[in-house]
Amino acid sequence: MYEEVVEQLIHQLERLPGIGPKSAMRLALFILESEDNYASELAKIIELAKKTIRFCEVCGNISGHALCSICSNSNRLSSIICVVEEPKDLIAVEKTCEFLGTYHVLGGNLNPIEGVGPNELRIRSLLERLSNKKVEEVILATNPNIEGEATASYLARLIKPIGVKVSRIATGLPLGADLEFADEMTLGQALTLRREMN
Amino acid sequence: MYEEVVEQLIHQLERLPGIGPKSAMRLALFILESEDNYASELAKIIELAKKTIRFCEVCGNISGHALCSICSNSNRLSSIICVVEEPKDLIAVEKTCEFLGTYHVLGGNLNPIEGVGPNELRIRSLLERLSNKKVEEVILATNPNIEGEATASYLARLIKPIGVKVSRIATGLPLGADLEFADEMTLGQALTLRREMN
Repeated sequence: MYEEVVEQLIHQLERLPGIGPKSAMRLALFILESEDNYASELAKIIELAKKTIRFCEVCGNISGHALCSICSNSNRLSSIICVVEEPKDLIAVEKTCEFLGTYHVLGGNLNPIEGVGPNELRIRSLLERLSNKKVEEVILATNPNIEGEATASYLARLIKPIGVKVSRIATGLPLGADLEFADEMTLGQALTLRREMN
Repeated sequence: MYEEVVEQLIHQLERLPGIGPKSAMRLALFILESEDNYASELAKIIELAKKTIRFCEVCGNISGHALCSICSNSNRLSSIICVVEEPKDLIAVEKTCEFLGTYHVLGGNLNPIEGVGPNELRIRSLLERLSNKKVEEVILATNPNIEGEATASYLARLIKPIGVKVSRIATGLPLGADLEFADEMTLGQALTLRREMN
């Protein structure tokens, strides 16, 4: 219906996560109709970023150098490793300003149906980091869904024998929630994992 | 929190319509993590499309040539002009396969608060098209919201004195709707604009 080049643009935009055919068309039209040099700026920064950015050799976080800004920061505790699925989860933890340790980015979660097994994740490099004996605790911060829980269980079984403390981020009602509107699973979990008050 | 170049990429993606800070971060990470040459393909097609595509000299639709594929199609009736706000509205009408006339893309709707007056829209070129006396009907297919209705009223007042028939797309309950869940405005409109059955 459109010119071939516009169809191609829409097709490439559709490959982005969360962008369906309608959104892709809206984005394409926005790009084509933008009056300033937005299109060329966007194209340039995509190429530049892709060329510049690589993954931290230690933790797998995205980085402009061999080591990311966290791994190369001597103020961060290398004795505590927080394991997350994706760089965006790392950012979410960083934003809490609660964590002073380092990270390990798995690059996903175990998902046999989609062909993601242990070898597809950065698990080997995590175990290598633990073998240097300086790590005291591994916090498993994979998502609290089926795949994330399975990944956490799998990692816990691998890591505990090494003699490193393994912990899991807490699940329960989010702060500010309403019991009335909480889903049954979360509320059930919150009851099961209730903590004694002093 | 990220490298400067990633922040810039996120910033440019945030300018796209419907893309907030979180979506922009997700898109940026997807682009950076994509393994094939997706990033460079996306960048190239953005530049190519922006360079190739211009606006039809007659109707304002996006096009690869001076005339768009509809205006240059001799099977389309140039005696009926359907006026839409944006190229995406034109596509929506085309998809119905109900319209065999031609279009006129205004490039938006009248919105004094945002500084969009008649001179910011392609109204002058619409009136020029009507002055050649071959146009029999103008269908106003601006969106049925406040700005779209205002734009349609404004255009109707301009066009009627020329002696061209002016019509407005129908409003009412969408097909397959439930009266129970219809909003009051739409249901009210559907009652007011009820049509006699034969």
